[in-house]
Amino acid sequence: MGYAAGLFLDYSLITMHGLHLTADLRHCRCAPVWLTDAHALGTFCVQAVQDTGLQAVAQVFHTFPATEQGPGGVTATVLLAESHLCVHTWPEQAGVTLDVYVCNFGADHSTKAHALMHALMTLFAPQQVQSHSLQRG
Amino acid sequence: MGYAAGLFLDYSLITMHGLHLTADLRHCRCAPVWLTDAHALGTFCVQAVQDTGLQAVAQVFHTFPATEQGPGGVTATVLLAESHLCVHTWPEQAGVTLDVYVCNFGADHSTKAHALMHALMTLFAPQQVQSHSLQRG
Repeated sequence: MGYAAGLFLDYSLITMHGLHLTADLRHCRCAPVWLTDAHALGTFCVQAVQDTGLQAVAQVFHTFPATEQGPGGVTATVLLAESHLCVHTWPEQAGVTLDVYVCNFGADHSTKAHALMHALMTLFAPQQVQSHSLQRG
Repeated sequence: MGYAAGLFLDYSLITMHGLHLTADLRHCRCAPVWLTDAHALGTFCVQAVQDTGLQAVAQVFHTFPATEQGPGGVTATVLLAESHLCVHTWPEQAGVTLDVYVCNFGADHSTKAHALMHALMTLFAPQQVQSHSLQRG
């Protein structure tokens, strides 16, 4: 996978280790469309993945039905060569949960994971954030 | 959403809160097909979701190309009414990472999340597990 044999890197230890960032956003000040339009949000996610140098390999977007509280939320998932991005929205409370998980496939992608999270946080512009970072693998 | 108005439940607090379970598995003793066959793994995941009483709303499965180490891994993602299930496999090291994330959509789904995680752990039969549990939202 691009490693020079002379480096004596243990491939089995490199690829599965990774970083999983989560952020739970409340009181998002973004345009409501980002919380309700799966196509718009999905397109943004795929572009953000590309812009941060990660590699999208598949995607699935879903719109939930409207409720008594208003339009339904959406889920946008982008599968990455490096693991995945998942976004869930709750428009009735201007809430969003974000997952950016990158394994160390081919390199340490931690910086790209933080950049992708930053792009999404900038989009949603929350007033309240609960974040976690988990080393995995 | 099935809530009786007389209960005075705060909808905004109920739905977004949830439980995110992760497990990183090494030395899985399952049949190799579960680590390399996206269709087989995806079908198992959808059935396990259904068996545990969660609601699948969409899915996407991806097979990675083979490498010098052997067959490529797979990603199986099932979007849930209650959030998502993501499985990534690393067949060259018999490794798997699992994410089971359930928001409290309509009810507390924590027990179902643990049951789904148990079903996947039983399938993969790892010799080593690193687990985390995160309250979200």
